[in-house]
Amino acid sequence: MTTELNRQILLVARPVGEPKESDFDLVEKAIPVPGPNEVLCQTIYLSLDPYMRGRMNGVKTYAEPVPLGGIMEGGTVSRVLQSNYSGLKPGDIVVARTGWQEYAIVPGPDLRKVDPALAPISTAVGVLGMPGMTAYTGLLNIGKPQAGETLVVAAASGAVGSIVGQIAKIMGCKAVGIAGSSEKCAYVINELGFDACLNHQDANFAEQLADTCQNGIDIYYENVGGKVWQAVIPLLNMFARVPVCGMISHYNATSLPEGPNRIPELMFRVLTHRVTLRGFIVRDYDDQLNEFLSETSKWIKEGKINYREDIVDGLEKAPSSLIGLLKGNNFGKLSIRVSADPT
Amino acid sequence: MTTELNRQILLVARPVGEPKESDFDLVEKAIPVPGPNEVLCQTIYLSLDPYMRGRMNGVKTYAEPVPLGGIMEGGTVSRVLQSNYSGLKPGDIVVARTGWQEYAIVPGPDLRKVDPALAPISTAVGVLGMPGMTAYTGLLNIGKPQAGETLVVAAASGAVGSIVGQIAKIMGCKAVGIAGSSEKCAYVINELGFDACLNHQDANFAEQLADTCQNGIDIYYENVGGKVWQAVIPLLNMFARVPVCGMISHYNATSLPEGPNRIPELMFRVLTHRVTLRGFIVRDYDDQLNEFLSETSKWIKEGKINYREDIVDGLEKAPSSLIGLLKGNNFGKLSIRVSADPT
Repeated sequence: MTTELNRQILLVARPVGEPKESDFDLVEKAIPVPGPNEVLCQTIYLSLDPYMRGRMNGVKTYAEPVPLGGIMEGGTVSRVLQSNYSGLKPGDIVVARTGWQEYAIVPGPDLRKVDPALAPISTAVGVLGMPGMTAYTGLLNIGKPQAGETLVVAAASGAVGSIVGQIAKIMGCKAVGIAGSSEKCAYVINELGFDACLNHQDANFAEQLADTCQNGIDIYYENVGGKVWQAVIPLLNMFARVPVCGMISHYNATSLPEGPNRIPELMFRVLTHRVTLRGFIVRDYDDQLNEFLSETSKWIKEGKINYREDIVDGLEKAPSSLIGLLKGNNFGKLSIRVSADPT
Repeated sequence: MTTELNRQILLVARPVGEPKESDFDLVEKAIPVPGPNEVLCQTIYLSLDPYMRGRMNGVKTYAEPVPLGGIMEGGTVSRVLQSNYSGLKPGDIVVARTGWQEYAIVPGPDLRKVDPALAPISTAVGVLGMPGMTAYTGLLNIGKPQAGETLVVAAASGAVGSIVGQIAKIMGCKAVGIAGSSEKCAYVINELGFDACLNHQDANFAEQLADTCQNGIDIYYENVGGKVWQAVIPLLNMFARVPVCGMISHYNATSLPEGPNRIPELMFRVLTHRVTLRGFIVRDYDDQLNEFLSETSKWIKEGKINYREDIVDGLEKAPSSLIGLLKGNNFGKLSIRVSADPT
């Protein structure tokens, strides 16, 4: 234990537009004591993910917002320090949803044990955790990739996009990534094996996308929105599928983009090309967890899935790191190392 | 036979915005002679449908456009005058796709025989034809109505909307229609049995829709677009389904609507409420024809489905009638009676 107090990061103001560090506050509380069937966990890795921006608004979507003065929400990889639950013992590594803090009490049945032999435990909030499962379930259940089809995914070097494209490759698709720098694009092609990767910062990005997708787009895994989605719409093929996972380019927006209103353009494409758009969240597919873990860890072992982590040390870095994530500053799956990894 | 020449209506100019009568030309040609396995048909009813506007543009969508100088496309109920095809004999009533003309030669196997005992033969291009099947297949396959859910459909007194709402009622849904006049709304409630019908011309239409759909909208059968779709988006429930069948309010548009660009608003609803949007055309479900005919004619016999026809006499009225259809001037399923109904 590095401290006898529990450092926590609270949400203290609802951001308008881009979050500021002053929207957060770091406080110290006593380390709580577990009751019957409860477990005291120490956070090792805190996952930072785009959805967190939505929880900072005072609006219920599929989930309740973080209350003002509440601990910021988040998935973690934690170590069991003390257990009153028969299924877990001190030293066990677990996945939890204990948020932006160093210690937490959790009912034992809410924890999922992680096997450190399977992969580095940090992956339990990455390629083998929520982001990986978001990629896997959205792509397979809604994207329904078929060999020979073309898939496009943005944030292609990130936690979700990187896995989407690699699974599409495994399924025999052509995978076209989109990322925000030439360095990221090189990584996506050379390390992840995508067929192509385009830089959305390029002035002629839309033309490049059309050139790269000469046979159109069969699956567009939507996680960014904005100009990428706009460039994709006219390329969507007959019976194309669009799993709608996120829209990070709009999360900090305080107003709708300038006109014209392009909804009719989108709807005409949906109509004339029998496109399917479908929103989802990973917990819609909770029953596929074991299948996801077994398939994905096999693919990692076989070298078919690579992943990259962007790990930042210190809970106090979480606010600035999340602010950076929303601007695309991270390179790979972003997590905070809150305490030393014992494995 | 009312003439020994074959009157045809050709597309002679591609409309910009609203079609004009001068975009069409009525010509007279010799009545053709059927070859082996061919049938000479005389048109009785010509169906007029919103999709025809799309075929007038020089753009391929799911179908080729009508070529300039070509006969306007359309479904018909026709009478067999002469048959070199063993499956049909003179006097048989058939459904054909012979377009805007009085006589046509068709390969016998392309014709579907209609049983005049089942229902008035005009319904073979209406409630028991393409529009009815568009309603049936889109609603059941994509809308997936469940008892207790709320369905919304516009053009609710029209050929497709009227059937969508009545099938939704049969499935136990609350059916909310939208139409363009108080007379149409009264018909939709009193004759078709919808739970409610709103006039989209009312200034506070969006508020009325929200008030009427207090439990949100589970299925929105999209056939109009525009302000109706805009009013629906914020009311879409978790896991709502949107079969995208048409967008008649945009068919004559020459530019996109004014901003802001509301695509992010739509996509956020899709994302946060796991909405499914899916475009379709009726021929995607050709294999459901017999099921559709048998179910729907049973419902008509049981009095569960009513329908209203708006029949205009004379092929020469087809251009002005289509122009009116695109403005919502018709009241019920619009067809042209090209020759006397012999049944």
